[in-house]
Amino acid sequence: IKKIGVLTSGGDAPGMNAAIRAVVRTAIYNNLEVAGVKQGYEGLITGNFVALQSHDVSNIIQRGGTILCSARSQEFRTEEGRKKAHEQMIANNIDALVVIGGDGTFSGARIFSQEYEIPIVGIPGTIDNDLYGTDYTIGYDTAINTVIEAVDKIRDTASAHNRLFFIEVMGRDAGFIALRSGIATGAEAILIPEKETHADELQKYLEKEYKEHKTSGIVIVAEGDKSGGAYTIAKEIGKQHPEYDIRVSILGHMQRGGSPSAFDRVTASTLGVAAVDALLDDQKSIMVGIVNGEVTHVPFNKTIKNKKKVKESLVNINDILSI
Amino acid sequence: IKKIGVLTSGGDAPGMNAAIRAVVRTAIYNNLEVAGVKQGYEGLITGNFVALQSHDVSNIIQRGGTILCSARSQEFRTEEGRKKAHEQMIANNIDALVVIGGDGTFSGARIFSQEYEIPIVGIPGTIDNDLYGTDYTIGYDTAINTVIEAVDKIRDTASAHNRLFFIEVMGRDAGFIALRSGIATGAEAILIPEKETHADELQKYLEKEYKEHKTSGIVIVAEGDKSGGAYTIAKEIGKQHPEYDIRVSILGHMQRGGSPSAFDRVTASTLGVAAVDALLDDQKSIMVGIVNGEVTHVPFNKTIKNKKKVKESLVNINDILSI
Amino acid sequence: IKKIGVLTSGGDAPGMNAAIRAVVRTAIYNNLEVAGVKQGYEGLITGNFVALQSHDVSNIIQRGGTILCSARSQEFRTEEGRKKAHEQMIANNIDALVVIGGDGTFSGARIFSQEYEIPIVGIPGTIDNDLYGTDYTIGYDTAINTVIEAVDKIRDTASAHNRLFFIEVMGRDAGFIALRSGIATGAEAILIPEKETHADELQKYLEKEYKEHKTSGIVIVAEGDKSGGAYTIAKEIGKQHPEYDIRVSILGHMQRGGSPSAFDRVTASTLGVAAVDALLDDQKSIMVGIVNGEVTHVPFNKTIKNKKKVKESLVNINDILSI
Amino acid sequence: IKKIGVLTSGGDAPGMNAAIRAVVRTAIYNNLEVAGVKQGYEGLITGNFVALQSHDVSNIIQRGGTILCSARSQEFRTEEGRKKAHEQMIANNIDALVVIGGDGTFSGARIFSQEYEIPIVGIPGTIDNDLYGTDYTIGYDTAINTVIEAVDKIRDTASAHNRLFFIEVMGRDAGFIALRSGIATGAEAILIPEKETHADELQKYLEKEYKEHKTSGIVIVAEGDKSGGAYTIAKEIGKQHPEYDIRVSILGHMQRGGSPSAFDRVTASTLGVAAVDALLDDQKSIMVGIVNGEVTHVPFNKTIKNKKKVKESLVNINDILSI
Repeated sequence: IKKIGVLTSGGDAPGMNAAIRAVVRTAIYNNLEVAGVKQGYEGLITGNFVALQSHDVSNIIQRGGTILCSARSQEFRTEEGRKKAHEQMIANNIDALVVIGGDGTFSGARIFSQEYEIPIVGIPGTIDNDLYGTDYTIGYDTAINTVIEAVDKIRDTASAHNRLFFIEVMGRDAGFIALRSGIATGAEAILIPEKETHADELQKYLEKEYKEHKTSGIVIVAEGDKSGGAYTIAKEIGKQHPEYDIRVSILGHMQRGGSPSAFDRVTASTLGVAAVDALLDDQKSIMVGIVNGEVTHVPFNKTIKNKKKVKESLVNINDILSI
Repeated sequence: IKKIGVLTSGGDAPGMNAAIRAVVRTAIYNNLEVAGVKQGYEGLITGNFVALQSHDVSNIIQRGGTILCSARSQEFRTEEGRKKAHEQMIANNIDALVVIGGDGTFSGARIFSQEYEIPIVGIPGTIDNDLYGTDYTIGYDTAINTVIEAVDKIRDTASAHNRLFFIEVMGRDAGFIALRSGIATGAEAILIPEKETHADELQKYLEKEYKEHKTSGIVIVAEGDKSGGAYTIAKEIGKQHPEYDIRVSILGHMQRGGSPSAFDRVTASTLGVAAVDALLDDQKSIMVGIVNGEVTHVPFNKTIKNKKKVKESLVNINDILSI
Repeated sequence: IKKIGVLTSGGDAPGMNAAIRAVVRTAIYNNLEVAGVKQGYEGLITGNFVALQSHDVSNIIQRGGTILCSARSQEFRTEEGRKKAHEQMIANNIDALVVIGGDGTFSGARIFSQEYEIPIVGIPGTIDNDLYGTDYTIGYDTAINTVIEAVDKIRDTASAHNRLFFIEVMGRDAGFIALRSGIATGAEAILIPEKETHADELQKYLEKEYKEHKTSGIVIVAEGDKSGGAYTIAKEIGKQHPEYDIRVSILGHMQRGGSPSAFDRVTASTLGVAAVDALLDDQKSIMVGIVNGEVTHVPFNKTIKNKKKVKESLVNINDILSI
Repeated sequence: IKKIGVLTSGGDAPGMNAAIRAVVRTAIYNNLEVAGVKQGYEGLITGNFVALQSHDVSNIIQRGGTILCSARSQEFRTEEGRKKAHEQMIANNIDALVVIGGDGTFSGARIFSQEYEIPIVGIPGTIDNDLYGTDYTIGYDTAINTVIEAVDKIRDTASAHNRLFFIEVMGRDAGFIALRSGIATGAEAILIPEKETHADELQKYLEKEYKEHKTSGIVIVAEGDKSGGAYTIAKEIGKQHPEYDIRVSILGHMQRGGSPSAFDRVTASTLGVAAVDALLDDQKSIMVGIVNGEVTHVPFNKTIKNKKKVKESLVNINDILSI
C-alpha cells in the first residue's frame, strides 16, 4: 500500500474531522500518501480527490461537520457506479480506503471490497451509536452533550411554569441517545424503541409520581419510539390530562453538529490511528471499534448483520432515579 | 414605603433571577423589606409570599428561569381578582410592587395601580425584545446567543451535506430575535413580520445567489412571520425547487432558558437597582428601561400602546452581507 | 440498615451532585432514610446533618460543586475525632455511610469502618482520575472538556500570532487530564509525570517539527510533571529559543467547576445507585467503580495502595498525531 | 477607489473574522476588489497579499482569531518601513485600507495616511474596550462572556469549600472587562485601575460583609489595577487574615479567543459595512464606531488622544449589589 483514500459518508457526525486528521497523519507517519475523497462515494465515482498533507488537517480537530463533505450515493449502489469508482482509484493510484460512516457506508464498502479485492477499513462515525462491535461511535458523546444542554435550558422554563415537556431526540431506530441523555437530564420518563411503553403506563407514572411530587416534567422520546414520536404521545396524554400544561420540542438537526467533545476527539484519534494500522496489517473489510477501552476489529459483515443492544442496567437506573 | 413585593410574570426569560437579586439587595441596602411573590399575579391573589433576605438571592445571578416561578393569571384580569390581591398586600404590609415581565404584565400592573393607588414599577423581562421604551429587554441577548449556537451547529451539518435549512426562531409578533441572530449567523435570508417577503423574492435570491455561490443555506424565519412559519415556506420553496435538499428546524423552548449572558446580567442588575430607586423617588406606573446606555422611565401606558420598531439599518446590512 | 449518611469530601468535582441525587433517591426507593452530612467528615464530627427527601435533590443533577459542601478534616485523622463522629452517627441513628471523594476520603473511611464496624461504601469523585479500580472517576470527563474549551480558545490566538503556548492543567501527581486533553486539542507535545521528558527532547521536537511545519504550538503540561511546571519549562525553552514567541497559561481552579458533562452525570448516577445497592448487599469498606462498562467493587485498601497507570497506547497516539 | 486592502493588527479579538467578512462582502457589493493583507502591517511591507472573494469569507463569521493573522510591526514604525508599504500598495493597485485593531494600529494608520495621502478607515477590534469614540469594541462582549463562564465555574468550587478567590482578568490599563464581568458574576469586590482601592478598604469590606454573610468570595482584579495584580493583593489580604482560605486564578489568554458572541458578530458586521461605506464617502483617517446604537466617525487623532471612561453608574451598582 502506497496511497490510501479517505472519505466520510452518510449522516455527518462531530468528530469526523478528528478522525480524518488522525488517518492522514498516521498515513504520513508511515510514509503513505493520502487522497481525500470529497462527497463520500459520490466523489469516488467522479474522481473528486484532493491530496492531503499534514498541515491540511491542522486545526480541524475541534471542528464539527466534515471537511470532505458527505453524501448518500445512489450510483454506488449499482455495479456500474462501483466500476467507475474502481477505475478512478486505479487512475489515481489509490490502493486502499478508509471509510468513515455508519452501516450504510459499511454495506457499500463490503460489496466494493469483495468485487475488486480492495482493502477497506471502516471507522464508526454516527451520532446514533447503533453499530454492533463498538461501545461508542464517533459523535455519540457530543450529540448527548448537545441534547443535555438543550434540555437543561428547557428545564429552566419548565420549572418556572410548572410544565410537562415531551422532547424528541435523534437516534434513528435506536434509543441510545435518548437513554443516556434522559438519565443525564434527570428525565421523568424515557421512551425508547427497545422497550415498549404503553401510554397508560406513562400515564400511571405521571398520575402517581409526577402529579404528586414534581413541579416540572421532562419526557425524552427517541425519534424511533413506537409511540409515534413526541407530538403523538403528547397529544394522547394531553387528551386524558387536560389539566397538564404540555409542550413539545423536537431538537432536530443541531444534534448533528458542533465542536466534538473531548471523548469523541480521543475516540476519533484512536480509531483513525487504528484504521491505518489495520490496513498496514493487511486487514480488509473490517470496522475498527473500541470495546472495553481497547481497539477491536469487526468484520463489516458482523457489524451490518447484528444489532447492538441498549444497556438494560441503564433502563433500570432511570426507573429508580425518576421517583 | 417600608416593604416591597417583587414578582415575575408571563413567559420567563434568562436574567430574571439577576433582576430579582438586584431588586432584593437594593431594597435591603435602602432598609426596605422584600416579599417574594410566587407564581406571578396568581401568588399575589393567593398570598403566596416568601420573605427574601440578601443570602436568599446569593448564587442565582447565573441561573436561568425564575426562582419565584411565573404564570399567566386569568383571575387578575377580573376586578374581583385584583381586589383579593390588594387585600393580600394590605394583610402583609406590602406597600409597593416591582413586576418583571412583558406588556401583559404591565397592562395588569397599570390597572391595578390605578384602582388601588399602588406604586408599581415594571422591569422589561422577555426574550422577544418587543417592548417600547427600552433598547433591550432582559433575556433578549441570551436568547440570541442560544439561537446562534444552535444555528452554528446546524451550519456544520448543512455544509457537510449541501443543504438548505429553514430555521424558525421565537419572537412572538416581532422579528427582533430573527434579525440579529440572522445577521450573527450569516444567514442567507431572514424572514420577519416587519418586512413582507414574497416567496418569489426569496426564490429569486435563492436562484441567483444561493444556487450559484453557496454550498449551504440558512434561512431564519421569525415565528410571527406572515409567510406562515418555517414549515410552510419550506414546503413552498421545495415545490418549486425539488432539486434543493431542504430541511426544517424549529428551535423551540430552549430559547427561553439557559444561564444568562453577561449583557443580560448587567442589564438586569442595572434595571433592578433602577426599579427600587424609582419607587423611592415616588414613581408609579412606569417601566424602567435602558435607552442609549442610560436608565429611562417610561409610563406603562406608553410602553403598552406603542410598538417598537426593528432597526432598518440591520435589515440593509443583511442584504449586503448575504451575497 | 434503616438510615444512611452521605457526604462529599476532599476537592469537589462536577457530578458530585448527580451522585448525591442518585444515592438519596435509590435509598428512598429502598425505603431507607437519608441524612446529608455537610462539610465532609467535619460535619460528621459536629453532627451537621440535614434530612434529604426526593425533592431536595431535584434539579441538582446539572449543577457543579456539591450541595453538601466539602472540606478536609484534620480532626477526623485523630482517634478522638472519629470517636465523636461515631457518637454523632449513633445519636442520629445513622447506620451506614456513602462517602464521595478521592483516596484521602477513602483512607479515612477505611480506618473509621475498621474501628467501629460501620458499613461504608465509597464513590470515586475527583477530576484527577487517579483512583485504582475504576476506569473513570466522577468529574474527570467534565474537567477535560473544560480544558479543551479553554485550549481551543487559546489556539485561536496562538494561530493568529504564531505563538508557542505552555498550558498547565490539573491532575495532582498524575497525567490523566493532561494526556486526554492533549490528544483532544491536538497538542504539539504533552508533558506528564508518568513519562520523563527531557527538555532537550522537547527542544529537538520543537526544532524539527514545530519550527518547520507549524504556525502555532500548544504544549500541555501536567501540574505534577517533573519538569517543574509550565513556567519553568517555558523559561528553559525560551532561553534556548529566544526566537519563539512564548506564552504561559495556568488554567487553574475553573477546572474543578461547571455543569457536569453527560458522561459524568451518567457515571455518577450509575455509581450512586451501585453504592446503595452495595450497602444493601452487606458490603463495607469498598469503593464502587466502573471497569469495562460494568460496576465493580474494590476494597478501599486496594484502591488506596495501588496506583492507576495511564494508557500507554494514548501516549503513542500523540507521538504520531503531533507531526 | 477600485481596490481596498484589509488587515488585522495588534492583539487579536473574537469578531475580527466577522469584520473581515463584512468588509470583503460590502466591497464586492460595491464592485470593489479586496486584497487581504496577512500579518498586519508586516504583510503590507512585504507584500503578503491574498485576493479575497465572497466565498473566501464564507463560514468564518463564527470563528475566533483572524484568518489574516496579526502581528506587531516594528518596521512600520520607521519611515523606511512605511515607504516600502506604500510601494507595495502601488505595485498591487491598492487604493485604500481598512485596518482592524486598537490604538497602536490607528497610530500607525494615521501617520501612514498623512505621509502618503492614503484613505484609511479603522475598525475598533480589541477585547479591552479602551477606545474613545465607540461604546463597544469588537471582542469585548465575547471576552466578558468567557470570563463569566470561567468565574461561574470557580464559584462552584469556591462555594463548596468556602473559599475566597482573587481572579485576574485582562484589560490592559483599563477596567472595562473587570467591571462588567464583576457585576455579571456577582463579585464581592472589583478592583480596577480607574478607582483606587486601598487594601484596607477591601479588608474592611471583607471583615464586615464577607465574614458575616458570605460562604464564598470572588474578587475580580483588573490586570492594570494599581494594587499590583491578583497575587500581590491576595498575599496582602492573606497576611492579615490567615483564617481565610484564599486562592488565586489568572484567567490569561483564553480571554482573547473563542467563537464571538452574537453581540460582537452584529457589531463587527455593522462596522465592516460602515468602514467600506466611509471610504466610498471619501472619508480618511477615521475610526468607525458605535455610539448610542448608531454608527459614528471619529478622527484617528481623537480616538488616540482621548481616554474612554468607565461608567460611574456601574461602579455604584456593584457597591449596592455585593452586600
